[in-house]
Parts: sequence; structure tokens; C-alpha cells
Amino acid sequence: MPTPLFIAFEGGEGSGKSSQIARLAAQLRSEGHQVFATHEPGATSVGRAIRELVLESDERIAPRSEALLFAADRAHHVETELQPQLRSGAIVLCDRYVDSSIAYQGAGRTLSTSEVARLSEWATGGLRPDLTVLLDISPELGLARAEKRRGFDRLEREQHDFHDRVRQGFLRLAQAEPDRYLVLDATRSIDELAAEIAAEVRARLAA
Amino acid sequence: MPTPLFIAFEGGEGSGKSSQIARLAAQLRSEGHQVFATHEPGATSVGRAIRELVLESDERIAPRSEALLFAADRAHHVETELQPQLRSGAIVLCDRYVDSSIAYQGAGRTLSTSEVARLSEWATGGLRPDLTVLLDISPELGLARAEKRRGFDRLEREQHDFHDRVRQGFLRLAQAEPDRYLVLDATRSIDELAAEIAAEVRARLAA
Repeated sequence: MPTPLFIAFEGGEGSGKSSQIARLAAQLRSEGHQVFATHEPGATSVGRAIRELVLESDERIAPRSEALLFAADRAHHVETELQPQLRSGAIVLCDRYVDSSIAYQGAGRTLSTSEVARLSEWATGGLRPDLTVLLDISPELGLARAEKRRGFDRLEREQHDFHDRVRQGFLRLAQAEPDRYLVLDATRSIDELAAEIAAEVRARLAA
Repeated sequence: MPTPLFIAFEGGEGSGKSSQIARLAAQLRSEGHQVFATHEPGATSVGRAIRELVLESDERIAPRSEALLFAADRAHHVETELQPQLRSGAIVLCDRYVDSSIAYQGAGRTLSTSEVARLSEWATGGLRPDLTVLLDISPELGLARAEKRRGFDRLEREQHDFHDRVRQGFLRLAQAEPDRYLVLDATRSIDELAAEIAAEVRARLAA
């Protein structure tokens, strides 16, 4: 049976996670690996219903309720997709996971990061990535990339501060667990980044 | 400002909670109290959407995900309705609350009761009832009342065992916190029960 491996991709808007996941998935499949590429939130039909509920609700949802809804999406995703795939020996590539909730929630400041971490720990049954690839980029560049525009008005600058707190949140998580994290400068070329990620994954598979 | 009071009503199917809530609400209103009668789950529009999601999902929902969805319903209900009503000095009557999740979940045995209790504690921000009225009834009588039928086939007997574990779950919770609980034999007459509940509530309001 092949070695399962769980790799999460984290980073702000426009950091290039989906491009790198597509590259790595293609590379690993060409080498004969079983690969399952997915994302959070909203990868399952239950998760899509939850996301719809959060986005389309007429009223503002209480912060704890919203955190619980995203945790519910994650719990279902882990039990019905991530765990079965890992049990079958797949390499799972997931676009955003627990650390996104912690970084974004910490930036939003409505709930403590330790509470969000504990909630995610329970929701996932303790499933942690073997490797987390953090594609680090400044909000200026990331948002410009993501939204194909330049310059920010006052409202967008507030958003910039928010995204900068998200970035710092990810970097703190990476610092706390250096062995689990591969932190990369997302302004480097797609090819260079893909090569470095592939090398790291190959080393983990050989370990 | 009037004294707020939070009263939860718990008990199995057919235990007569909604009749007693209606009686007590009418009684307290006639005495000039501000009363807010509500229920869980699904009292808010967010909660109704969550309940619809749980009931109408095509696929089976992972147990942790389901527990998180019900906790999300509760968190929203507490923050947007129960807490504002209590802050305004209302007497809140709630048909089912945290102890229902613990008793039913414990009976289902998919998750530990302590985990479900911890999740509810976080979802409610620690809001506990001042008084919990437990209307205790055997599943035979309760289900017969609720479904207006007698006798059980094999499948219904399994359901009976389940409901008996729910009943024992409620009784254990009441035993652990006798000061918070008023345990009543739900086979007594509606009038007798209403009088005993009203007397207990009056004592709590005078305290």
C-alpha cells in the first residue's frame, strides 16, 4: 500500500495556491501516485449548503455560530473525504485547512485564536497535515493579483490591514511549527515554486 | 428593571413541555411579567436553515458535523434572542436546551457526552438556565401520547431503548445538579403540574 500524505496549502488571496496544487497534482500523478485535490470550505454537498447558508442568510450570523458552521463543514469534509482518501493511500492536497480559520479568525478578532484552534481540533478529530505549504505574499501584491487592479481607497485599505493581520497570523503559525511548514515567497516564479514544493514532497515521501 | 429568569424545559417525546410552557407563559403574562417563549432547534431563520440542511441533506452527515450544526443553531439563538431578552429583563422559557443535546447524544453513543457538553458550553458562551423543568415520562407512555398509538414492533422497540437511554440521561443530569432542576412526574394532570411549576418559578423570582 502506498504512503498516504496530507498536504495543506495556505496563504492569502492571490498567493497562487490553486496553481501550485494543480502543478503538484499533475506531477505526482505522472509519477504514479494516487492524488486527491480538494479545498475548504464547501467541497462536499453538505459543505456547499453550509456556505450558501452563511453567504445568503438575510441576517448577520453570530460570530460563534459562523465559526461552528465552518467547523461543521470541516468535520464533514474530514470524515467523508479526507480520512477515506488517506486510508486508501492517497496523497491529499487541500486548498486551505485549519490554519486558515485560525489566521482569518485571529485577524477578525471576534473570537480568540485558541478557541478557534480547539474547535477545529475537535471538528477534525485531530487530523493535522503532514506538511503545510505557506505561500507568503504581501496583501498589496496578492490582492492586486487576485483582483487585477491597483491602488486602494479607504475601505480597501482597511481590508489591506485585515489581510496583513491574516498574513502575520500565518507566519506566526509557521514559526510555531517549523517542521510542519514550508514557507515560500509567493512572488517567485510558478516554476521555481513548483520545483521546490515537489522536492519537499519527494523528501517527505522518501522519509 | 424586572428580574430576568431563564427557564429550560426538558423531557422526552410526549412529556407535555409545550403545554406547560404555554400555561406558564400565560400565567406569568397575566401577572405583568415580560415573557419570551422559544424553542430549540430552529427558532431563528438561521436555525431553520440549519435544520433544513440537516433534515434535507441527500447524504448522511458526519456525527461531529451534525453536533456542530446544532451547536451553531444554539449559538445564534443565544446571541440574537436569549441574551437580548434576558438583558431586557424578560423571563425566557425555552423548549429544549443544552441538556437535550447531551441526553440525546449520549443515547446515540456516537460522541461522548462530555464533548457535547463542552461544545454547548462554548456555543452558548456559558449561558445556563436558572431553572430546568424536567418532565419525566416513560418512553412507552410518552411515545404513545406523542404518536397516539399503542404497542411497538421490533423496530419501534429499538427506538424505545433509545428513548429510555435519553430518559436516563436527563435523570442523571438532574441528579448531578439538583438545585437547578425541578423533576416532575409528567403523568400527573396538566393542572397539577402547571401549579407546581408556577410555585417554583414564583419562589425563584422572589429569591
